[in-house]
Amino acid sequence: MSVNNIKILGIDPGTQVTGYGLVKVKEKKPVILHMGVITPGKFKDHYQRLKFLHEKTSHIVGQYHPDVLAIEAPFYGKNVQSMLKLGRAQGAIMAAALSQGVPIFEYAPLKVKEAITGMGRAAKEQVAYFLQKVYGLEKLPDQLDATDAIAVAICHFIQMNKPTYKKAIKTGRIL
Amino acid sequence: MSVNNIKILGIDPGTQVTGYGLVKVKEKKPVILHMGVITPGKFKDHYQRLKFLHEKTSHIVGQYHPDVLAIEAPFYGKNVQSMLKLGRAQGAIMAAALSQGVPIFEYAPLKVKEAITGMGRAAKEQVAYFLQKVYGLEKLPDQLDATDAIAVAICHFIQMNKPTYKKAIKTGRIL
Repeated sequence: MSVNNIKILGIDPGTQVTGYGLVKVKEKKPVILHMGVITPGKFKDHYQRLKFLHEKTSHIVGQYHPDVLAIEAPFYGKNVQSMLKLGRAQGAIMAAALSQGVPIFEYAPLKVKEAITGMGRAAKEQVAYFLQKVYGLEKLPDQLDATDAIAVAICHFIQMNKPTYKKAIKTGRIL
Repeated sequence: MSVNNIKILGIDPGTQVTGYGLVKVKEKKPVILHMGVITPGKFKDHYQRLKFLHEKTSHIVGQYHPDVLAIEAPFYGKNVQSMLKLGRAQGAIMAAALSQGVPIFEYAPLKVKEAITGMGRAAKEQVAYFLQKVYGLEKLPDQLDATDAIAVAICHFIQMNKPTYKKAIKTGRIL
């Protein structure tokens, strides 16, 4: 698939707030098409949250038909309990994309920040600044969670232009 | 809902092998209707495994229309990495049930063994023995993973007859 015209759905998963952003590559530059947040945190029940996350992601994937899902996923967490909960949220989101034939690439938060700002420890405001200045994005989302989703989508766009990308597709490895 | 005639789908999730078993309550006794294993481990790719787990569970739920999903879920794991992977598998399975309106109850492995044998540290063979002798199950599955799935379904059956069950339904708490 050509990098041009590709649609990347970026997702920053969270059991309280999950950000999403749809980026399309036009003339070798990423353009934001849609963005927003899913708020499973409005439900108290753990299962209602999972159901809501799965249904909303299914709807977004069905509506926008992205070519790929780029998801921000930490590899280390505070403790096993929080990682189990995050894993369930990721699983519900991933199942929605996979069942509609959308391949998944995941990126650690440090990797996303580094790809966009050159600094792994960059603040959210720095990420937003680089998104606007370096990638010429006119419009930035109001919510920081949606910004993070846009950032992971653009991180994937950057990775696609690297020689390591083809190898990652072949091996199915996490970049 | 009356306990009689209720159909309980038991699932013991694993990224290599996931066991499932459908139990129906007839005349206040659990009867095995179906059982088997899903083998995501036959795929090397992590995402193919998740997709396979989600699709197979969706199919099983759509085919047998259980009233409830009882899932065996450890609350503690070896490390955050393994818990994240298990969480994703659980999330993909849970999303399949939740999207079809099937409520979920989860039980720790110790709880399942204790409910069936009276011993939290019981061996798999002891669980199988009790399933046959105490619950009068004529037929036991060939695979141990399917046995574990039957065990968690029957664990739920036992819980349903306890006074704490109604409270758990109301509060949405994990038993």
